[in-house]
Amino acid sequence: MNPKLQWLRNKMNSLDLQGMIISNPTNIKYLTNIEAEGTLLITRKENIYITDGRYIEEVQSTLTIYDEIIVYDIKDISIDDKENFFMFCENVGFEEHFVTYAKYKEYIRKYKINNLVETEYMIEKQRMIKDEEEIENIQKACNITDDCFSYLLGYIKPGLTEKQIAKEIEEYYNQKADGIAFETIVASGENTSKPHATPTDRKIEKEDIITIDMGCKVNGYCSDMTRTIFVGKVPEEIKPIYDLVLKNQIQVLNDYKEGASVRQITKMVEGNFKLHGGHNLIHSLGHGVGLDIHEPPYISCKSEAILRENMVVTNEPGIYIAGKFGVRIEDTVQITKFGCIKLTNSEKNYTII
Amino acid sequence: MNPKLQWLRNKMNSLDLQGMIISNPTNIKYLTNIEAEGTLLITRKENIYITDGRYIEEVQSTLTIYDEIIVYDIKDISIDDKENFFMFCENVGFEEHFVTYAKYKEYIRKYKINNLVETEYMIEKQRMIKDEEEIENIQKACNITDDCFSYLLGYIKPGLTEKQIAKEIEEYYNQKADGIAFETIVASGENTSKPHATPTDRKIEKEDIITIDMGCKVNGYCSDMTRTIFVGKVPEEIKPIYDLVLKNQIQVLNDYKEGASVRQITKMVEGNFKLHGGHNLIHSLGHGVGLDIHEPPYISCKSEAILRENMVVTNEPGIYIAGKFGVRIEDTVQITKFGCIKLTNSEKNYTII
Repeated sequence: MNPKLQWLRNKMNSLDLQGMIISNPTNIKYLTNIEAEGTLLITRKENIYITDGRYIEEVQSTLTIYDEIIVYDIKDISIDDKENFFMFCENVGFEEHFVTYAKYKEYIRKYKINNLVETEYMIEKQRMIKDEEEIENIQKACNITDDCFSYLLGYIKPGLTEKQIAKEIEEYYNQKADGIAFETIVASGENTSKPHATPTDRKIEKEDIITIDMGCKVNGYCSDMTRTIFVGKVPEEIKPIYDLVLKNQIQVLNDYKEGASVRQITKMVEGNFKLHGGHNLIHSLGHGVGLDIHEPPYISCKSEAILRENMVVTNEPGIYIAGKFGVRIEDTVQITKFGCIKLTNSEKNYTII
Repeated sequence: MNPKLQWLRNKMNSLDLQGMIISNPTNIKYLTNIEAEGTLLITRKENIYITDGRYIEEVQSTLTIYDEIIVYDIKDISIDDKENFFMFCENVGFEEHFVTYAKYKEYIRKYKINNLVETEYMIEKQRMIKDEEEIENIQKACNITDDCFSYLLGYIKPGLTEKQIAKEIEEYYNQKADGIAFETIVASGENTSKPHATPTDRKIEKEDIITIDMGCKVNGYCSDMTRTIFVGKVPEEIKPIYDLVLKNQIQVLNDYKEGASVRQITKMVEGNFKLHGGHNLIHSLGHGVGLDIHEPPYISCKSEAILRENMVVTNEPGIYIAGKFGVRIEDTVQITKFGCIKLTNSEKNYTII
């Protein structure tokens, strides 16, 4: 059996789960490498992937005998089959943070399950710690992101629209990687004051500030980086904000290491922003990066997470002055025993194009 | 109050719901025009949209006083506020097909709700019937799709890869519309046998068959069209399959009208496919199109839906010969009292480039 499914079965044993229904496609991709629409059932004796006619061919070609996964077309499964899958299973786990309330009720009915048990991000927690191959994929995605950013420094000039720049990034990623990891943000001028701005037809002007939040995918794994850059010169009113964000971003890089409390680190940034001008940190300080662009651990004051070796997370403080401008600086990093390794390495000092 | 929220309040009254939690962003967009991450609460006296710092500015600029929606930053809501929102509400509705089991439990706890009641696609059912403005948007998206298809007939030639063609479609849509409505499918040669193929680096060859499934967005509303075309000539072995698919597609256009049973129509196609060569219809015959690319009504044997005036649905029969080729032909249409109006109008007879 593939080692990730073996891990899952051991984990289920330790939790007294005799069966499990896995519905989150990212968790299924993680465990089996299958990318399709379907459900993975771990029963007492078998690993079963149920999909439909659209995906049967593709799924069969992804799997090897070594995976020990039986693929079913949903059309070929009888009501009896469904009722038999989890026979003699006292407890069957499910993903309560992914499965809708309606689906939860359907599972109980369809599979005749006695105890459908919440599994509290069991697979997501395992996914937080990346193995060598996963980190390699993320590093590749980060390298391509750095390369794309260098390319952009030569490409961007007054007259181009935010949309054109975002499109250029997407094309770059389509060529060099497996496409974008999320909708690229290119915000200019006062649009930078919206942390989650969608690229518009606004044209880049002389003396503009530009925030670019970008990432791509390699073999399913994501990169995530933000830089705030300037056209012609850095306006005086922006300098102190930029310096404050950068200083905090660097401090966080120093604090990220095995055993660190993400809550404490976020509090530190919040306190420092408040102290120097009464600014708020209006979004999370960061998040895990892997098969999903946003995944645990979440780096915020509300999170109890402790950083562990081989977690891959972002570090992205930002300050936004409503209607005026905003500054965000973000890297993707790998946590180690004694610190962190930056996986994105683009310039962070004042960058003027 | 905006008329869609007024409709919702009347509907809630008729179902004895004193409050409602709306979490599905498409339903929120439909009711309020807001596109952000957040939750809409309909309480006894107020309409409340809760979002976070990333979206406050954008949401405020979307709304007018006329909407009567109060916007809160989630950070400013106390535990007491939460417990007060639904005070004196006996029944509070929620979207059981969207809300996860974990969220369902959180809502009950956080808002101190007595009866959190399933609302059975209440808003989605209303969304099935499009008003004039909605149909106008879909028609625009369909026109742009027809135009893009004509453009492609001149653009596609041997040597181009599936990915290059898909990218060209995306660029066309980025320029003329608000981007793609879903990941474009461009499948060539034996890749056409996978109904849900992702574009690959395979190059178009002489005498290839090509299936293109494409759609764009206009003001949030989608179009959806598939054509199967040929390079140089139509291979003899494909002709009978193409003819069979097209004949059924045209028959379905004749059968689509107010009052028609989607189950019966699908059965008819299934029967006809079986009769002429023992082929299976391995996916749905169609689906509703609107703010979502796939939305109710679903056109399949499992659906109890009856077509109604001003529903907008697709008609997309397909036959797939594993490892060899596949043919799918799809239009987006508007249902009327006495028939249907095709919103996509590209050529469907043998198209040879």
